[in-house]
Amino acid sequence: MKENLTIIKVGGKIVEQEDTLAQLLDDFAKIPGYKVLVHGGGRSATQMAARLGVETKMIDGRRVTDSEMLQIVTMVYGGLVNKNIVAQLQARDINALGLTGADMNVILSRRRPAQPIDFGFVGDVSEVNGKCLANIIGEGIVPVMAPLTHDHKGSLLNTNADTIAGEVAKSLTPYYNVTLIYCFEKAGVLRDENDDNSVIPHITYQDFQQLKDEGVIQGGMIPKLQNSFDAINNGVTQVIITKADSVGLEAGTKITK
Amino acid sequence: MKENLTIIKVGGKIVEQEDTLAQLLDDFAKIPGYKVLVHGGGRSATQMAARLGVETKMIDGRRVTDSEMLQIVTMVYGGLVNKNIVAQLQARDINALGLTGADMNVILSRRRPAQPIDFGFVGDVSEVNGKCLANIIGEGIVPVMAPLTHDHKGSLLNTNADTIAGEVAKSLTPYYNVTLIYCFEKAGVLRDENDDNSVIPHITYQDFQQLKDEGVIQGGMIPKLQNSFDAINNGVTQVIITKADSVGLEAGTKITK
Repeated sequence: MKENLTIIKVGGKIVEQEDTLAQLLDDFAKIPGYKVLVHGGGRSATQMAARLGVETKMIDGRRVTDSEMLQIVTMVYGGLVNKNIVAQLQARDINALGLTGADMNVILSRRRPAQPIDFGFVGDVSEVNGKCLANIIGEGIVPVMAPLTHDHKGSLLNTNADTIAGEVAKSLTPYYNVTLIYCFEKAGVLRDENDDNSVIPHITYQDFQQLKDEGVIQGGMIPKLQNSFDAINNGVTQVIITKADSVGLEAGTKITK
Repeated sequence: MKENLTIIKVGGKIVEQEDTLAQLLDDFAKIPGYKVLVHGGGRSATQMAARLGVETKMIDGRRVTDSEMLQIVTMVYGGLVNKNIVAQLQARDINALGLTGADMNVILSRRRPAQPIDFGFVGDVSEVNGKCLANIIGEGIVPVMAPLTHDHKGSLLNTNADTIAGEVAKSLTPYYNVTLIYCFEKAGVLRDENDDNSVIPHITYQDFQQLKDEGVIQGGMIPKLQNSFDAINNGVTQVIITKADSVGLEAGTKITK
């Protein structure tokens, strides 16, 4: 029987504040079994860009990454955010290893075509080296993954962290019984986005279609749920969308077929 | 019989210019056998600090690292410089893995005492996990090491790249026949620092003492040679000090007992 592996994806807001990060890492350290952490860092990148006098351009909630912005996200995601998490996990006796997709060639991507929108140095995942990740995980190492991939031609590419979490989860299903947890500021998928008590406890694909038609699920939650169903349809055992302070608890929204 | 391993240490000036970095990585890719790259990045850190309005303070050629400067070197060494090298080595089919000392706990250090000079978040290496490094090297992975270590209490520490190269070399001698190559802008240890044709081809410890007394060897070359002899006295087969564009050639200054 396969052993359990938990993949936690945490967004920028949580990893960028000292107190919420410390709480998250305490909770993460307590999760039993094999695990992986995938982090964002968009807010820090935007702040750093502002300090450097570089304008942040977003289209449909996604960052336009010109060569100067690529340098900033490489510094912030691959350096500042990633290495601080690694050092703080080591202090909790978790043998963390910070990775971008370029490291050991774990995530290869293709630069997104410039049509219809030119997002610049943004990559869509083409291949995850699940075998390499499974090997290091099996040795007790905990990958901490930054939202950067590479094109195998020498360029790093900015890649959505939710997508990385989903693709990594799928790539590990031959080796582990994988649970994927998307953590963010809200308690789960909400029926009323202003009411944290309106969590929808369980969503099937049929529910998703209906809730989308009703306008209950909208905006950034749509791609998050699409990633979730894609993971479920590709062997991931369960996907949970929950609040960062509920990691490891039976809370949030459970996504199943 | 042990297999050969080559450790190349390259300074900031070489890794921070696109053309010299590309040449170095071409040369590095051609080195046969197992290998490790250790890089600096001080000039980029100083430039980034200036852009962010943070003053760079140096004492005896060493960077004073307050908490703001620690963030900058974490971004620049661990992110910008390290991940660009990794991506560019992958493009040359070298299976690179970027590491700080916090990653897999490979280099533990102690924060340097605040007396006689308070350098801030600067670490002196206390332990290198040679076994872990040897394992990943044995799997065909090429570590690319940034000059950052950690204290196992959650803090990264800025650590001299020459020292990291020397300590990593020593830690790998139980597993490999180690050659350590320090690359910099000059052709080797020079008798006349303004004449690249005055390379001293071979220096023993006795020569070193004499050349130091004569004032031929001075400044930043003294700690570099001290690191070299420390490595030689701890099982490293040979140390070479040479120009970056001579990596892999029989050139530069050879250091032996």
